[in-house]
Amino acid sequence: MKDITAERNDLPLSLLQGEGNTSVVPFRWERRILYLLDQRLLPHEETWLEYRSARDVAQAIRDMVVRGAPAIGISAALGMVLAAYGLKDKDRDFFAEKWLDEAAFILQARPTAVNLKWAVERLKKLVRRHSELNPDDLAAILEKEAISIWTEDVKANLAIGFHGQALLPETGGVLTHCNAGGLATGGYGTALGVIRAARSEGKKINIIVDETRPWLQGARLTAWELIKDGIAVTLVVDGAAGFLMQKGQIKAVVVGADRIAANGDVANKIGTYTIAELARANHIPFYVAAPVSTIDPVTLSGDQIPIEERGSREITTFAGKEIAAPGVEVHNPVFDITSHHLVTAIITELGVLTPPYGPAIYACFS
Amino acid sequence: MKDITAERNDLPLSLLQGEGNTSVVPFRWERRILYLLDQRLLPHEETWLEYRSARDVAQAIRDMVVRGAPAIGISAALGMVLAAYGLKDKDRDFFAEKWLDEAAFILQARPTAVNLKWAVERLKKLVRRHSELNPDDLAAILEKEAISIWTEDVKANLAIGFHGQALLPETGGVLTHCNAGGLATGGYGTALGVIRAARSEGKKINIIVDETRPWLQGARLTAWELIKDGIAVTLVVDGAAGFLMQKGQIKAVVVGADRIAANGDVANKIGTYTIAELARANHIPFYVAAPVSTIDPVTLSGDQIPIEERGSREITTFAGKEIAAPGVEVHNPVFDITSHHLVTAIITELGVLTPPYGPAIYACFS
Repeated sequence: MKDITAERNDLPLSLLQGEGNTSVVPFRWERRILYLLDQRLLPHEETWLEYRSARDVAQAIRDMVVRGAPAIGISAALGMVLAAYGLKDKDRDFFAEKWLDEAAFILQARPTAVNLKWAVERLKKLVRRHSELNPDDLAAILEKEAISIWTEDVKANLAIGFHGQALLPETGGVLTHCNAGGLATGGYGTALGVIRAARSEGKKINIIVDETRPWLQGARLTAWELIKDGIAVTLVVDGAAGFLMQKGQIKAVVVGADRIAANGDVANKIGTYTIAELARANHIPFYVAAPVSTIDPVTLSGDQIPIEERGSREITTFAGKEIAAPGVEVHNPVFDITSHHLVTAIITELGVLTPPYGPAIYACFS
Repeated sequence: MKDITAERNDLPLSLLQGEGNTSVVPFRWERRILYLLDQRLLPHEETWLEYRSARDVAQAIRDMVVRGAPAIGISAALGMVLAAYGLKDKDRDFFAEKWLDEAAFILQARPTAVNLKWAVERLKKLVRRHSELNPDDLAAILEKEAISIWTEDVKANLAIGFHGQALLPETGGVLTHCNAGGLATGGYGTALGVIRAARSEGKKINIIVDETRPWLQGARLTAWELIKDGIAVTLVVDGAAGFLMQKGQIKAVVVGADRIAANGDVANKIGTYTIAELARANHIPFYVAAPVSTIDPVTLSGDQIPIEERGSREITTFAGKEIAAPGVEVHNPVFDITSHHLVTAIITELGVLTPPYGPAIYACFS
């Protein structure tokens, strides 16, 4: 394993300040109101929805108004700040009980991404530590912490970009799957952060994204935010990634993650495992870019990660129109597990982790 | 290699007579008019379009009113019969010249499936052999031959089903990709013929089909024709096949083919190579079911097979609605090549071919 601490200290100041970062950001926090960019309507409509309660934020996460592991974590944290301000005039005991109810509720919103739990637990710890404070003051502390979770995520992404871009080739195709961009994070992105950083470094790579059925995050979100950022991107169907690899049109793969187990197994959008297997068969490096908050040291391996199954209509309908044969049964698992054996490196804000992942991941938490 | 001649003689008579075959058939030939079931509108509308000229049939093939390698071959043959009847009152020389012009035109309709060429060449041979006949009589001979191409295809599919079903497990999931069913052939289907035959034999397999973007042949066509036939089917996105394999939910894969090279390399719908690679990694047999008319002994290996690239709007729009980010570039190869190394067996009407495919394929033409 590399000395990841040394690499962390190596980040240029301009990078830490987010210089040149023009990435889209999927939320705004203004006067104690959370605004979420409705990702269900992108790329055709840029609609911001307004949230004033944790329950509504939980529903937004469930409905995928906001998605992407780090963005879910940040949204949930801000949702818990809304809950705190909603309870600020109550007494301490009532606050603690009700606020924890809201936390338990929001934790159920989606099961696979660990950042949701990570962010809410971080706020819960603060509530326990400051149990003597009155609710109004506690809410202000929670707000500060949630904003920190957000800004730390952007900084982590800039660092991931800095570390990861060095792994990408100077030229040729780089494939990404789903959306691990600004829209999936506090801004800049993990996998797309690596791509943005490589482009900033002057690398002449061309970006390929697959559609990512059923929700079309690749076609709708990744293509949209890269084009907005002036980065050309080529769209292919999910089934075409292998063909492009065979033809030598893909030199590296970089994807995000929803949860990384202690052994380096990676839960990510359905189809990720397929790309990893194709990359191995075609001798192409397969990189996972994610902040340490996506690593769950308590999950020992991928088979312990719950895989969310979503509704059949994500597959059988498009924009309200039926597209599949009536009466067909549907199986819609929306994540899969990529074994650590298929992962060339995990790019974190602390540095690039390489196999064996067990000790490398352990070091991130030491 | 097995003694495929012996197996051929082993077919039960009931099977050769198509007993119990309730499969959909994608064309009708009535009073010298060709009717094609418009596969662009399935599964929601069953519309039959009427064709009276070879040019219009060529356009129907190009536009995918009819698709699937054997069905394209049969449609093209019937299209050439339409051309012959259109010229039946002309003199012999004019007939020969004009009819060959029409043949050259229809041969350009789609490049990858070899059955188109195979069927048209078979009629051309007949025109050369009977150059002394007057056009009216020649048209009748061509009609008889085109009908033979069709009925032979159905018999071939019944035989493929008979040979192939023995390879499928008694229980568990069987995955197919795209549509290699009645709709893609003269009836009964190749890959779906194997599935139909296995179900007729009482095997308790459950059928899984992936969507097959961009044209959704799996979601729209395979699901529709199997449900119509009383066979339950589960639909997944293309990216989920690997996940199901990891979970042990797929015990065998069976797909069709658009062209098989002399070395056993298989051109089939985009995404097929991906499934083959996943099958190998998960130790699952990968079967290709196709009539001998799909084998092109003149194409020595897969890299000699032209891969059709279709328009970007197949990916960026659905039912006239834009679904991808505006301005995105698109790469839309609609077939890929699966190396013979990944193919467990090729199921033909003559028997089951196993590696090494070179001599097994050679024997089919001897």
